[in-house]
Amino acid sequence: MALLISYEGANADVWRQEFGKHLPDMDIRIFPEVGEPEEIEFAALWMHPIGDLQRYSNLKAILSFGAGVEHITRDPEFPRHVPIVRLVDELVVQDMAQHVVHWVLHFHRDYYRYLEGQKAASWQKYPLREPGQRRVGFLGMGAMGAVAAKMVRDLGFSVTGWGRDPVSLEGIRFFNGDEELQSFLENTDILVNVLPLTPATENLLDEQHLAMLPAGACVINISRGAIIVDEDLLAALDSGHLSAAALDTFRTEPLPADHPFWSHPRVFVTPHVAGINYPHSAARLMSDNIKKVMAGEAPSPVFDPVRGY
Amino acid sequence: MALLISYEGANADVWRQEFGKHLPDMDIRIFPEVGEPEEIEFAALWMHPIGDLQRYSNLKAILSFGAGVEHITRDPEFPRHVPIVRLVDELVVQDMAQHVVHWVLHFHRDYYRYLEGQKAASWQKYPLREPGQRRVGFLGMGAMGAVAAKMVRDLGFSVTGWGRDPVSLEGIRFFNGDEELQSFLENTDILVNVLPLTPATENLLDEQHLAMLPAGACVINISRGAIIVDEDLLAALDSGHLSAAALDTFRTEPLPADHPFWSHPRVFVTPHVAGINYPHSAARLMSDNIKKVMAGEAPSPVFDPVRGY
Repeated sequence: MALLISYEGANADVWRQEFGKHLPDMDIRIFPEVGEPEEIEFAALWMHPIGDLQRYSNLKAILSFGAGVEHITRDPEFPRHVPIVRLVDELVVQDMAQHVVHWVLHFHRDYYRYLEGQKAASWQKYPLREPGQRRVGFLGMGAMGAVAAKMVRDLGFSVTGWGRDPVSLEGIRFFNGDEELQSFLENTDILVNVLPLTPATENLLDEQHLAMLPAGACVINISRGAIIVDEDLLAALDSGHLSAAALDTFRTEPLPADHPFWSHPRVFVTPHVAGINYPHSAARLMSDNIKKVMAGEAPSPVFDPVRGY
Repeated sequence: MALLISYEGANADVWRQEFGKHLPDMDIRIFPEVGEPEEIEFAALWMHPIGDLQRYSNLKAILSFGAGVEHITRDPEFPRHVPIVRLVDELVVQDMAQHVVHWVLHFHRDYYRYLEGQKAASWQKYPLREPGQRRVGFLGMGAMGAVAAKMVRDLGFSVTGWGRDPVSLEGIRFFNGDEELQSFLENTDILVNVLPLTPATENLLDEQHLAMLPAGACVINISRGAIIVDEDLLAALDSGHLSAAALDTFRTEPLPADHPFWSHPRVFVTPHVAGINYPHSAARLMSDNIKKVMAGEAPSPVFDPVRGY
């Protein structure tokens, strides 16, 4: 019985050590040092090579190193018969919510204009709006979106949410489904995208939908880059329709050095750091789920192929 | 009976209109159109010319357009026999607290490094610390400091405060007086200065005190520029002892175009916008205090010359 860890860009030794604390009897292997593929019963993955998963015929569960699993399901050969367990770590959810709070305040308070003005030693002040007059709209109100939305609401902002399944949160107006998407966007000054990437959300933020945002709106993306059409976002910024964008995720990561996002004066790029796993915490949560599967219990939360996340 | 409004840099018509809503019978005059000086019974001031106040022999109260009053008491001739009313507007206090939250997150999450890295299309990630492992210390725990400290505490940070008078706030360790200043500074990763400017606090953040901060610390100043020794802060940044500073107030405002703060890569300058008065709200609060004085009641909060603020 072995656990395969495949985590592009991570320090494998740290993860081996952390998993070892919780699973002392587990044979832990670091990709690509797989050994006998049929001995692999658990696979903890981030950006695993496409096509490789079909080698492991005795998998009991796949564990994602992130809340999203599209880095697994993008593999046409991913095994349909084993549960794919998502990683939803409260510590990381809090960090992601704080990332949102930072950029909401950054845009709300015009800090990006002040940092720009500093280059010219400009003392120009911009008129301040009361937080209650600034509408922050969360595209996606799942576990992640709800935590961030409440944090922003508690700072006094006017908060709304949009999603497929109705969500009831005190003081937060909810817009439901495709028929209310336009109304949601038209009433959003700062848009925060926290949608999972699915066939239904891919390219959702295109020219047409970005145009529904009011003039001067800002965009924050912390979910997946492929939900935004890069060229359409750039065009909306260049036309002045949108004021700024803070992007943490991209279609291709690392973001290619020649991508226009890097040099655009109103695009703020962070290298997928809104939520970074804490090995001690993530390994504990993932090990707990491995133990559940070994005991014949159901792991949680599990990817639902019907919903797509 | 007349109210004199003297507010450097402000739109006087807006203030005349807002005060007029609450004081319909008041004769409102905008400096320098004073009329007969002895008719002035109330003076609402921001950066009023030094030496001018002694002209108004029938003043009943002076109202500051800010929480600080040193812009009034810097005038050697300011009248000692009338109350000086401070402006503490909950809306502005909230905004100032949000300014603090923004810069705490900005430094905590290394966004300034990421924005710097963006210029070189750098995908480098910096290790993330849990908020509870980041110590945010508030120099000053008055009305302003306490609100900001609680907001930062509620985001999960480890928060401390320092002041002259003991303050008890849940979950916030308090350091008291001169004898505990060093210990406070040695345990502060992000220092937030919210002290009032008094003879006791002027130049407090000098070479010696900045050196007590741990290596890599950051400084946020939202109170008054003269509490920091500019050259000592710059030296501490240049030596690498301090990582960054977000400064909203300065010894001379507007900050002179040739001041090295403007061009320093690790100094973030905002033009005194942490808290900007909302005319509708400030005029209401100040008018309420004028009405109290007219009715023979005590206005509040009033400058205490013994405490110095």
